[in-house]
Amino acid sequence: MSFDVLQDKIRAMKNPTVAGLDPKLEYIPPHILEHQIALHGTTLRAAAEAVLAFNCGLIDALCDIVPAVKPQSAYYEMLGSCGIEALERTIQYAKSKDLFVIADIKRGDIGSTAAAYSQAYLDCVSIGSETFEPFPCDAVTVNAYLGSDGLRPFLETCEKRDKCIFALVKTSNPSSGELQDLIAGDRFVYTVVGDLIQRLGKGTEGQYGFSRMGAVVGATYPMDLRSLRRRLEHVFFLVPGYGAQGGSGDDVRHAFNQFGHGAIVNSSRGIICAWQKTGKNGTDYQDAARAAALEMRDDLRRFISIV
Amino acid sequence: MSFDVLQDKIRAMKNPTVAGLDPKLEYIPPHILEHQIALHGTTLRAAAEAVLAFNCGLIDALCDIVPAVKPQSAYYEMLGSCGIEALERTIQYAKSKDLFVIADIKRGDIGSTAAAYSQAYLDCVSIGSETFEPFPCDAVTVNAYLGSDGLRPFLETCEKRDKCIFALVKTSNPSSGELQDLIAGDRFVYTVVGDLIQRLGKGTEGQYGFSRMGAVVGATYPMDLRSLRRRLEHVFFLVPGYGAQGGSGDDVRHAFNQFGHGAIVNSSRGIICAWQKTGKNGTDYQDAARAAALEMRDDLRRFISIV
Repeated sequence: MSFDVLQDKIRAMKNPTVAGLDPKLEYIPPHILEHQIALHGTTLRAAAEAVLAFNCGLIDALCDIVPAVKPQSAYYEMLGSCGIEALERTIQYAKSKDLFVIADIKRGDIGSTAAAYSQAYLDCVSIGSETFEPFPCDAVTVNAYLGSDGLRPFLETCEKRDKCIFALVKTSNPSSGELQDLIAGDRFVYTVVGDLIQRLGKGTEGQYGFSRMGAVVGATYPMDLRSLRRRLEHVFFLVPGYGAQGGSGDDVRHAFNQFGHGAIVNSSRGIICAWQKTGKNGTDYQDAARAAALEMRDDLRRFISIV
Repeated sequence: MSFDVLQDKIRAMKNPTVAGLDPKLEYIPPHILEHQIALHGTTLRAAAEAVLAFNCGLIDALCDIVPAVKPQSAYYEMLGSCGIEALERTIQYAKSKDLFVIADIKRGDIGSTAAAYSQAYLDCVSIGSETFEPFPCDAVTVNAYLGSDGLRPFLETCEKRDKCIFALVKTSNPSSGELQDLIAGDRFVYTVVGDLIQRLGKGTEGQYGFSRMGAVVGATYPMDLRSLRRRLEHVFFLVPGYGAQGGSGDDVRHAFNQFGHGAIVNSSRGIICAWQKTGKNGTDYQDAARAAALEMRDDLRRFISIV
């Protein structure tokens, strides 16, 4: 679905938060994993079923207060095909609860391969006369290192299927500057990428003014966030780095425009690992996640007024 | 396994070719897909079983003349968890035939996520006291846009488990220059990435002088290939773009050092789709793939002498 749908959900909940579903095994409450091991033995299948159960519980606890979830593909791939099945079922369950689903896959490849990825995550795959949607997401993250060839197939799919993508522009990690902050001519490399995104997306803007090409811009570099917000008026931002990585509510406010629109802030560990701080060994993981999400929402509301 | 193992295999076969296993459904001979649809119905499962059968047939036809295979993840992800199971089993089958397996995943993420990817593809995953290797590859491709944070977890795994990686430096696609050819200070962006790769890999060189950090450098930009070969003495190259994408034997010779070492050239469609040119409707796909691989080997031998 387009950024209009996401922005509407954010406005309705007055909460520009996406909950990152990054289910490392040590983030899963012990009783959930133990139950699945009792059923399936100590296997990848047991771990994957535990991931799914954990995610479904989190989605139940969050779906009326958080507009979107973002599963990080790596933690599902770690469990092989069983893990990917848990990813498929997590996406389906989140969609059944009317959440906006961003698959954090950070794929980037040559045109023909990018077309395959966009079919898998944003479109459908045809076998004979049947069609299938392996991963029925609303949006994915992509890597723009290969240039526009690798982005256009995604954009074409987005237009056809009313979806959108986020390309990595300025990432939240400590070494992001090694390449992204290089100066090429009169622009940072990340600015070149941002400008490319805005140019490619031109003409696909929705009612809030945002095109189908979004950008990932980290909370950990608030001054870059601010300058990119001003420059990329039509680009919706996905903002990682809040909470565990060090970004604050005061930092992320720079991601929003004067109407409080145009960005969604991710928190993964802060929400899904909240149970580790209550001393109840994870039996309260749903309540803990909900309380953490409400605390984050209220923190963001202190800095951002959503019209 | 390290690049020593790969270089030894290349020398033994006098063939620096990697066969790309990119099984788009239209590349699979009709009789294979029809057989699986008869067994499993028109389903993702049927398509995935057809992919696996096709790959195993290709591996049987190629394993004594080609040292390595490179499955492209996108074509497996297209078929959801069934496709990923086909990827797991393809990798296992290729390993059983003593092939060097490069998973073309082009992943790139922040440190903690990069660690998860490196566990999935190059290391093992622990559940309780058990360990599992979901995708037991020898090497993967990675994207360096996030800088050294996103590469170090892979490198650490490589050292621990005797594996190696290829980071995208200069890709083969038409728009690769949009970012990669920007000039930052006195270097191209792709040169900055190449230098970073060589610096990070320093100290991990094997008997042929190549470190565990390899680079992807496309055949379609032969002058860049030549200058990078001179500059990155200790970096092993994976060279896409030969054949269908336009690179020739004369182009790819620039990827090799004076001993004919330090590179492996990929061909996907040229080998796996060779049956589409013989007029036999795919019943001869193994013979056609083998003939195409021998023709490519002989073409490369005209330009490269491997000591």
